[in-house]
Amino acid sequence: MTRNPAPAGGGPRRKAEIFTATLGLLAARGYDALTIEGVAQSSGVNKTTIYRWWPSKSELLRDALLHAPAMQFEDADTGSLRGDLEAIAGQVQALLSDERRRAVVESALVGAVRHQAMRELVVSFLDDRFGRHQPVFERAVQRGELPPDFDPAPLVDAMAGALWMRVLVRREPVAASFTDDLIGLLTDGAGRAAQRPAQPGR
Amino acid sequence: MTRNPAPAGGGPRRKAEIFTATLGLLAARGYDALTIEGVAQSSGVNKTTIYRWWPSKSELLRDALLHAPAMQFEDADTGSLRGDLEAIAGQVQALLSDERRRAVVESALVGAVRHQAMRELVVSFLDDRFGRHQPVFERAVQRGELPPDFDPAPLVDAMAGALWMRVLVRREPVAASFTDDLIGLLTDGAGRAAQRPAQPGR
Repeated sequence: MTRNPAPAGGGPRRKAEIFTATLGLLAARGYDALTIEGVAQSSGVNKTTIYRWWPSKSELLRDALLHAPAMQFEDADTGSLRGDLEAIAGQVQALLSDERRRAVVESALVGAVRHQAMRELVVSFLDDRFGRHQPVFERAVQRGELPPDFDPAPLVDAMAGALWMRVLVRREPVAASFTDDLIGLLTDGAGRAAQRPAQPGR
Repeated sequence: MTRNPAPAGGGPRRKAEIFTATLGLLAARGYDALTIEGVAQSSGVNKTTIYRWWPSKSELLRDALLHAPAMQFEDADTGSLRGDLEAIAGQVQALLSDERRRAVVESALVGAVRHQAMRELVVSFLDDRFGRHQPVFERAVQRGELPPDFDPAPLVDAMAGALWMRVLVRREPVAASFTDDLIGLLTDGAGRAAQRPAQPGR
């Protein structure tokens, strides 16, 4: 795709307001009831202006998820795979501990199970965030912590999935010991793969 | 709780029909629209009979999740932690590959995010299934594959969460290599914990 990372032109502050209104309505009403009319009302920006930037609600929602300040993660370079993953888990934990941001995640995930358009948005969001964490795994390969052919997908899904189970299904607080144990499991397991000779035929 | 594992009395076949109708309606209409009247119509069992066994829809749904044949897992004793976890993952994979059973899981998880009653049912279901897998971890401790104080919660949530991310969010098939890599990560990580001396203060 040859899309701009953020929509060109227009005031960035006004766009941030539109994104915040979009995610707020998604959280409050769910994917079905989200409309560009509603975003216009909530943000105070003219409907035709919003339509000029985003021809459909799914385009708007896609940019809102990718660019809203509430959904950003920083990639920390701590010098070890374990430290880098702990930094990411800490940010996911902070996201899910904040009631408003958690409501966005919940609505997006519920919508993803029910609606194909929302599912594509969530997968595209995950792929974007996953791509940003790629340097974490590249640095770990360079340090010899991971084998060069290591596929991070199961590790990333296990980490995201475990936090989701804990916070959104069980509604239990994510204790530091849970994150420590989880990341210990995953990095120890990944580290052991680095010490094994490559298996032929895999 | 001093509940019977299955409701006492009544024809077991009729109860199985009621459970199947209950889960079918949950899958088709979601938690909100599920009613005992609907279950009566769908199963052909008199409404007052159903109410005699289950005073509320959440009691009925709880038993349906716990006892419906579609939601059973067997605990395989393969002789290794890795083999036992692969057997469980295979059953979860089979569950999520079956369109009708997957629809039940989706509706339950979506309902769990939105409704506290449904969330309590899902957590009680997970705790029940989790309790049944306890012997897997006890045997692994006896074989020295896991340390005696190993807490299986992060491992279980990581395995369940990763499969959920893969199947329900990403809608990607769970390739055998994904399950292998996932379980390899988790068992290698857990195994390494067994070889470490206990850390003081933990």
